[in-house]
Amino acid sequence: MRPAEFAALVFLGLAAMPVVSVAEDRIQATGSLGVVIERATGSVLVVDRANRAALNRIEGLGDLSHASLTYSPDERFAYVFARDGGLTKVDLVEGKIAARIVQAGNSIGGAISDDGKLVAVSNYEPGGVKVFDAGTLAPVADIPASGKTIGLVDVPGRRFAWAVWDSGEVFLGDFSGAEPRIEMIGNAGQMPFDAVLTDDAHTYLVGLFGEKGVTAFDLWSDRPEPRRFLTDYGKEGQDMPVYKMPHLQGWAFAEGQFALPAVGRHEILWVNRDSLEQVAATPVAGQPVFIIEQPASPYVWVNFALPDNDTVQVVDSRTHQVVDTLKPGKSILHMEFAPRGAEVWLSSRDDNKLVIIDTATRKQVAEIPAQSPSGIFFTNRAHQPGL
Amino acid sequence: MRPAEFAALVFLGLAAMPVVSVAEDRIQATGSLGVVIERATGSVLVVDRANRAALNRIEGLGDLSHASLTYSPDERFAYVFARDGGLTKVDLVEGKIAARIVQAGNSIGGAISDDGKLVAVSNYEPGGVKVFDAGTLAPVADIPASGKTIGLVDVPGRRFAWAVWDSGEVFLGDFSGAEPRIEMIGNAGQMPFDAVLTDDAHTYLVGLFGEKGVTAFDLWSDRPEPRRFLTDYGKEGQDMPVYKMPHLQGWAFAEGQFALPAVGRHEILWVNRDSLEQVAATPVAGQPVFIIEQPASPYVWVNFALPDNDTVQVVDSRTHQVVDTLKPGKSILHMEFAPRGAEVWLSSRDDNKLVIIDTATRKQVAEIPAQSPSGIFFTNRAHQPGL
Repeated sequence: MRPAEFAALVFLGLAAMPVVSVAEDRIQATGSLGVVIERATGSVLVVDRANRAALNRIEGLGDLSHASLTYSPDERFAYVFARDGGLTKVDLVEGKIAARIVQAGNSIGGAISDDGKLVAVSNYEPGGVKVFDAGTLAPVADIPASGKTIGLVDVPGRRFAWAVWDSGEVFLGDFSGAEPRIEMIGNAGQMPFDAVLTDDAHTYLVGLFGEKGVTAFDLWSDRPEPRRFLTDYGKEGQDMPVYKMPHLQGWAFAEGQFALPAVGRHEILWVNRDSLEQVAATPVAGQPVFIIEQPASPYVWVNFALPDNDTVQVVDSRTHQVVDTLKPGKSILHMEFAPRGAEVWLSSRDDNKLVIIDTATRKQVAEIPAQSPSGIFFTNRAHQPGL
Repeated sequence: MRPAEFAALVFLGLAAMPVVSVAEDRIQATGSLGVVIERATGSVLVVDRANRAALNRIEGLGDLSHASLTYSPDERFAYVFARDGGLTKVDLVEGKIAARIVQAGNSIGGAISDDGKLVAVSNYEPGGVKVFDAGTLAPVADIPASGKTIGLVDVPGRRFAWAVWDSGEVFLGDFSGAEPRIEMIGNAGQMPFDAVLTDDAHTYLVGLFGEKGVTAFDLWSDRPEPRRFLTDYGKEGQDMPVYKMPHLQGWAFAEGQFALPAVGRHEILWVNRDSLEQVAATPVAGQPVFIIEQPASPYVWVNFALPDNDTVQVVDSRTHQVVDTLKPGKSILHMEFAPRGAEVWLSSRDDNKLVIIDTATRKQVAEIPAQSPSGIFFTNRAHQPGL
């Protein structure tokens, strides 16, 4: 995998010179790179979409059993948020850890400001949000909360939004001035479990666990107000135990609709993006975890909680019908599309591999070994508000 | 600008070794890079958004008086389409020309397939579309047409769409198999002058110059059919001479609407994305050239043809009102937003500079010298269908 130049250098006996840090991955552009969380080993795998290959493994990131990450705007650095409160800045170009801190006892996710200057982390233990300098990871702000914070997203204008599980409060924090300005913009309802920002940064959607429904906030408004919808969903059927909480970052926005997981039900719910009225429900093979739009297509792909996590279904957002059911591997934990939609990468945790499927044929075209892979994150996320 | 490693190598007398191609920009990630067309000098300027800086100038690209480009999926290469039929593959990492051919007498633009394997060019003289291997620029296919081809875009599944100025015909070419399959999918109308694909690759919109109206094709359909709209627009007012043809790649898709330039009028037309009915018209300062959505915001920005090309206006897509009028420099030819919307870069051709404006304050925050700059293209375009 090393280029001729690097081999030549080693041959010339210059291995101890500074120049050897010009490792193989340095001479490649970052646009088709990605990072895969290896949940059991505290490691991440840097992958290259263009060559369908793993480039290198970086270890020592802590407890990655529930981890996510966000990218710097130049795609050089991934900020990995670990379950144990670790925040690790990974250098994709150098292939190593650039900085690492343990900033809390238990954290759940994070975000980077639109200008790439600040990284914010949402914490469970203790609750609240901490904000760090993206360059050095030096602390910038510590915002306490009355409980566990969830659904942290970046909002344009060097702002972040988040919700509090215990109180239902939703906050907007503005870090563009000398001092942070934190505003409570409303109460979402009982036990918000996750939240997501629409791709145009217009609507902040908060999913509720303690009661039925979803709450929307219009972040383009000067005075965002909570607007509850889907308040009846699931009331007529019988709910099942929730084996795995769905992830709202997987909520798809297709054809003027939101495609939402029905918590505890084997259903996808389709909601009109403007009216917030439910327009359809699609029965699916299990409890949805991620519902992800295949870019540049009418389709969304869905994976499921146990015991159906060997199954992936493809649903047409126009007809709301399942058009394909795949069995790509054991325990499919995550799916990430090439940004223009030509292929999708899936994590098959218990097969210890990544599976790559061509979206035109829906057939496997390649696989890559990985250790208990979970989240897959391609670098084009650097350019998406809310990711 | 050269890193210590490079200087050390030169000092060691290894300048003639292959390793010296490890130039400075090789060690930087590509996510915040961009390429600026310098229209009068046949050169391009590689810029870095993260540092608001020019990195290097690459010369010898031919007649760039009407040029555009597209990126490889890994953001390493820009394929520059010149007016004189030149197709130049620029290596952003090495900072040099990787390959160059003159493939026709007069070309108008091009596109790259969703998998990054094929580059297609639409030509005026002779007409038709030529397709090249993205790696080597070796010819792959030569599709004749009954006239000048315009509005060439990539469509998922290794396909391209284009229209013919002389005949109004619209074609879909499928290059996923051993032999190309070219299908005429309908007639758009008289003198299509440009076309654009919506961000979800759902609708191919063709602007007409020979008659009133715009024609839409549903590319998600197995049998796309032409659907004409805005057929009355401008009939009641008096049209003015068209000083500069608007660019449809600037059409904005905001709030469930298309924002379209009224050809020959001082107006933006707003059309409902689903019904294709006109919902509003906004009087503006001149004849619109580019109408571009500010990402993650309710705003579109508009620049204008002569004699109003010193003016840029900002319009709210919710109220359809002009909310700001800026005079950022002489002859503003193009605008490109940071992908998450924090700032916008403008080409001020006759001031020989790029102007950078913070979108939160709408104040200039920096400028960069450039020679007669026109198009600005940031690398995140690599991840957008239709660009």
